[in-house]
Amino acid sequence: MTSGPAQTPSEDTTAARGVVDLLGLLAYAELVSFFRLADDAELAPSLADKGELAGFAATEQGHYQRLHDRLVELGVAPEAAMEPFVAPLDAWHARTEPQSWLESLVKAYVGDGIAGDFYRQVAVLADDETRELVTGVLSEEGRAGFIAKKVQQAVADDPKLAGRLALWARRLVGEALSQAQRVAAERPHLAALLVTEGAEDNAESGDLAAVSRIFARLTDAHSARLKAMGLSS
Amino acid sequence: MTSGPAQTPSEDTTAARGVVDLLGLLAYAELVSFFRLADDAELAPSLADKGELAGFAATEQGHYQRLHDRLVELGVAPEAAMEPFVAPLDAWHARTEPQSWLESLVKAYVGDGIAGDFYRQVAVLADDETRELVTGVLSEEGRAGFIAKKVQQAVADDPKLAGRLALWARRLVGEALSQAQRVAAERPHLAALLVTEGAEDNAESGDLAAVSRIFARLTDAHSARLKAMGLSS
Repeated sequence: MTSGPAQTPSEDTTAARGVVDLLGLLAYAELVSFFRLADDAELAPSLADKGELAGFAATEQGHYQRLHDRLVELGVAPEAAMEPFVAPLDAWHARTEPQSWLESLVKAYVGDGIAGDFYRQVAVLADDETRELVTGVLSEEGRAGFIAKKVQQAVADDPKLAGRLALWARRLVGEALSQAQRVAAERPHLAALLVTEGAEDNAESGDLAAVSRIFARLTDAHSARLKAMGLSS
Repeated sequence: MTSGPAQTPSEDTTAARGVVDLLGLLAYAELVSFFRLADDAELAPSLADKGELAGFAATEQGHYQRLHDRLVELGVAPEAAMEPFVAPLDAWHARTEPQSWLESLVKAYVGDGIAGDFYRQVAVLADDETRELVTGVLSEEGRAGFIAKKVQQAVADDPKLAGRLALWARRLVGEALSQAQRVAAERPHLAALLVTEGAEDNAESGDLAAVSRIFARLTDAHSARLKAMGLSS
């Protein structure tokens, strides 16, 4: 735990500021995802599904709590760390309001996936403890399996759904990338973490090229997730 | 754990059926309370308060999960056990929709309180394991303290609020008693648990008298809770 890169969040380096941004972003993302999942559960067709979704929502709250506590540990007010990300994340959710139970499942799956890829990418250059926390918070295999199975089943029952849900997924990822670009522009320390990592592949490339390459990688991972749900990209 | 009254939920006695009703009622109450708290958190004035309320909601989900698992353990489908209580609990929530953050806090406090009194009363005659589970699920001291402090502070800042919030609390308890009477009429096995316990005080009294006496006791406890929030009854 004490090995790894020397930078720790207590040092006032670009990386340290990036880490606070990362934790703040992830904390607010978990909190708002908790609220959205709880809202969406009202669309669930059965009491059992409602209960299941409530469980997913509660897991998000648990993650929020851990990230919140980590920020407190670092001497940072969690609310101040989250504040810069309220507008872009709220905007993403406002622009991607599910109109059905299935749309809400696809959103949870796609949203988690994109967010997970992004956070893992950024966490590579964070200090060890932050990286472990972020990685731990992101490992929710049971949930992804439950959702993929439900969507697959629905598409098998009514193949017409496949095209509509794939379009919905494309809108989700488009809106996510547009908010991510906004965040990258507004939060240089966070973007720096992303770019430094991207630059490992190609030290010649400028910041924008690195960001584009990372976004391309996220898009590939998105296609793999669509396949897992039985949707084509 | 193996001492205590002989009846266990696996025996098809009135008490056993009452216990399944109790667990089903409590499970659905926790699930719906989870959803309502998560909804109400949107009214919270700050990110910190939102996070706090999300934590309360997640606690309800944890309780739901434990009650759900206990029903499964007893060989009962949790959804079947919850079903009879969906209409009365949804009706209570529909008739008591908070219009402000403070109303939502008072509702959480009053609703928890009434529910807790009621469940504890009924659980007295349940089997040991059920009683322990119910009592454990109901012990949420930190939360009650947080809410009472917030309401007290708001009333201290603006004394005009006291009367309005006390009226709101009266409406909450009135609607709860009306739904409880409906449940007692529709679920004789559950009502029997309540009445048997009430009858310990006065073996001569009929069912209705016992129920009324219990309701009177609940109302007294309600007045004590109003005082704790700085409201008069």
